[in-house]
Amino acid sequence: MADSLKVLADSVQKLMRRNAQRNLRKILEGSRPQDLAGLLGYLPEHDRIKIFLEIPDRETRAEVLAEINIEILPTFLEALSDEELVPLLEEMFSDDTVDILEFIPEERKNALLRKMRREDMDEAEELLRYDPDTAGGIMVPDFFALPELTTCKQAIETLQQRNDELEMAFYVYVINEHEHLVGVLSLRQLVISPPNAPLAEIMETEVVRVQTSDDQEAVARLVARYNILAIPVVDDTNRLVGIVTVDDVIDVIREEATEDILKMAGAGDANTEFAFSSVWRSTRSRIPWLFASWLGGLLASSIIYSYEERLARIAILAAFIPIVLGMGGNVGTQALTVVTRGLALGHISGPHIPRTVGREVLVGLSCGATYGGLLGAAATGFAAFKAGAFQLDALLFGATIGFSLCTAMVIAALVGSTVPMILQRLSIDPAVATGPFVTTSVDVLGIVVYFNLASLLLGI
Amino acid sequence: MADSLKVLADSVQKLMRRNAQRNLRKILEGSRPQDLAGLLGYLPEHDRIKIFLEIPDRETRAEVLAEINIEILPTFLEALSDEELVPLLEEMFSDDTVDILEFIPEERKNALLRKMRREDMDEAEELLRYDPDTAGGIMVPDFFALPELTTCKQAIETLQQRNDELEMAFYVYVINEHEHLVGVLSLRQLVISPPNAPLAEIMETEVVRVQTSDDQEAVARLVARYNILAIPVVDDTNRLVGIVTVDDVIDVIREEATEDILKMAGAGDANTEFAFSSVWRSTRSRIPWLFASWLGGLLASSIIYSYEERLARIAILAAFIPIVLGMGGNVGTQALTVVTRGLALGHISGPHIPRTVGREVLVGLSCGATYGGLLGAAATGFAAFKAGAFQLDALLFGATIGFSLCTAMVIAALVGSTVPMILQRLSIDPAVATGPFVTTSVDVLGIVVYFNLASLLLGI
Repeated sequence: MADSLKVLADSVQKLMRRNAQRNLRKILEGSRPQDLAGLLGYLPEHDRIKIFLEIPDRETRAEVLAEINIEILPTFLEALSDEELVPLLEEMFSDDTVDILEFIPEERKNALLRKMRREDMDEAEELLRYDPDTAGGIMVPDFFALPELTTCKQAIETLQQRNDELEMAFYVYVINEHEHLVGVLSLRQLVISPPNAPLAEIMETEVVRVQTSDDQEAVARLVARYNILAIPVVDDTNRLVGIVTVDDVIDVIREEATEDILKMAGAGDANTEFAFSSVWRSTRSRIPWLFASWLGGLLASSIIYSYEERLARIAILAAFIPIVLGMGGNVGTQALTVVTRGLALGHISGPHIPRTVGREVLVGLSCGATYGGLLGAAATGFAAFKAGAFQLDALLFGATIGFSLCTAMVIAALVGSTVPMILQRLSIDPAVATGPFVTTSVDVLGIVVYFNLASLLLGI
Repeated sequence: MADSLKVLADSVQKLMRRNAQRNLRKILEGSRPQDLAGLLGYLPEHDRIKIFLEIPDRETRAEVLAEINIEILPTFLEALSDEELVPLLEEMFSDDTVDILEFIPEERKNALLRKMRREDMDEAEELLRYDPDTAGGIMVPDFFALPELTTCKQAIETLQQRNDELEMAFYVYVINEHEHLVGVLSLRQLVISPPNAPLAEIMETEVVRVQTSDDQEAVARLVARYNILAIPVVDDTNRLVGIVTVDDVIDVIREEATEDILKMAGAGDANTEFAFSSVWRSTRSRIPWLFASWLGGLLASSIIYSYEERLARIAILAAFIPIVLGMGGNVGTQALTVVTRGLALGHISGPHIPRTVGREVLVGLSCGATYGGLLGAAATGFAAFKAGAFQLDALLFGATIGFSLCTAMVIAALVGSTVPMILQRLSIDPAVATGPFVTTSVDVLGIVVYFNLASLLLGI
């Protein structure tokens, strides 16, 4: 898909250079809004706005704007005048309007809101009150709700009248006289039920619902769990105030996965990394995570420093420090990744904990035995080569190195699999804090094991 | 939610011990299938089957089985007899049947298929022919398709007759006399259009579709991109053979995110890590990735080895090797994670490449300057303390260490941001191969820089 957009971008640029307005317009009319939004990402900055404003009708333009990649959105919005922007903000579904407004600096945002139609402004301001990461922040306030005594026939008639203003209406929500949510039925049930049946008779009364303040991740989990296409959002009095549709849930799931991936590498959050490309922001978000790792490294250094005497006697011990710590770090990262992801997906819970740790330690042991053996052989070779002859000393040196590597890897597997579960128990997000903690522990424990094994086996 | 399941599991176990069949049955009847599936994960193995078989009706039992966590699924299936399993496999939607069958060893799978109703067996065997990671492997062959000349009224009547066998029917697909897909319309359009209008007149003719052999990730991307609830699947002659619904797409998106996370840590794939908990399988899947890192470590060792002479003269240089390589590795991992994820989401494409690399290098430089400075100060302190006095030598030593760290971090940012893009260009999945490559390069380059800077500045 990415490639087809590149081809499209090339031909659009060619047509622009040739000033072939008619052909250009044909392309713009024949493409889906999502593809046009993707196309803009492939165009150089100065062509983007020009092409965008060439898009024939306002509705498509609004849809394109709602789909534009957050990587280019801030500069794009800056280049549009208030007069160009306001009609588009009015045209969009109000959840999209709010998403766009969140990328605009406070002052201009307020000016834009004041220029919008009263009704659209009210809707947007209502939604802006909610935290963008909550159900309230991602819901649309347009939904199809009817009183309990409405008949199926009346419901279908109402649907025919409210033609265009509904986003993905596949459910009919049923409310009582206080606007409280009391039931739900699918459009299909509506169609196949007797025309005179009141909704109250055919509706499902056990409605999965969320509150406006619920976290968007919880909303996504419910929608994914119960395989539904939209989830109703109620306020604290159970009054129906909006719905979250499955397409927005998909966005949340991708966003949360990205967050988890970035957090595990200590690389801040998705908005910082992609949308605002300032070096300063990224640095600020990564610096604290690196600090933990720096402190751990310094601790490791001072421990090695304390072994200086032994190191001076067998300087070559130093050559194998990086591989022992590096492989330990890798095994620790593997264990912590598997466990952290398993916890996030709910695959690992209470009864599985001892088995999971046991399993990781055994995997660490078998990988450690393999590579410890190989490294031991290689180190024996090194030492024999250096001595010019194969001696018991060389074998002992090899055994020290190999055994150290294996031990470091087992320790790493143990630390990597237990730390995320402990953090989870303490209600600390394992994705964010485990990495530096595991690396540091593995570094420190690895060095202590390494030098003590060396002292013991080599008799330094 | 996880906690509420734990509470449920506890009360179920209590009721089982008290033999309170009636209350138990009430709980089982009042719970959603997805919650019952979750509940089973919290029960000890011997209670699971007992509770499962207590679930009153077959339909719910089939739904529960389809939702059971893959972590416990294999042992669960082993505990069920063929006679218990076959009716459930027949009851499920055929995509779920196939998902379950894929967890059953070949021989038993064939026996089960032979025991199923002819019609269900044929459907399952048809689907089993497709690779489970393709559109064919995740589609359901039950969809609502009608000829072009059907009127809206006839369509609604047909829908009323085909009551229960459709999974999430929200679209009507329109086919021509060769069963080729020619159009689509939503249930809502059907309801609000004139009863006598033929479908051909109101349908959308530009139908987003996939082929049976298309990768599931591509399917998910299209569904997410165009905000649709189901995507039709056609064979190579454009004959409509199935649909993929958005709930299955959500599963694909989560699965692919998990795969990416695990791949980046070199921890095999999700099925290996969660479903089959054998240590041997996990080891086998992680060993190759570790090999790359082992080889890199060995290379680093032999380079340090070649600097043995300098090391012997200033043994304390060894103390700072781990922190220089470790911090370099961290910055490299951050850069590669941001870039790899950006590539996967399509945030980073052609025109953004130079800016992305430049940005990562600058972030590396500012983090490097910060921590290089701090480490330089610390190392100066170490050296001054050792010498018992503050001398120029100590300052020079500190500068060497600090400058090395900063250089290693900048190199790491450069390598970490360019390698994924090069791999992507070569059509190699950046998530799987970048990690060891970056760590190794950073290790080797870091050591070379470190020792050469030391030689230069300290005049060894």
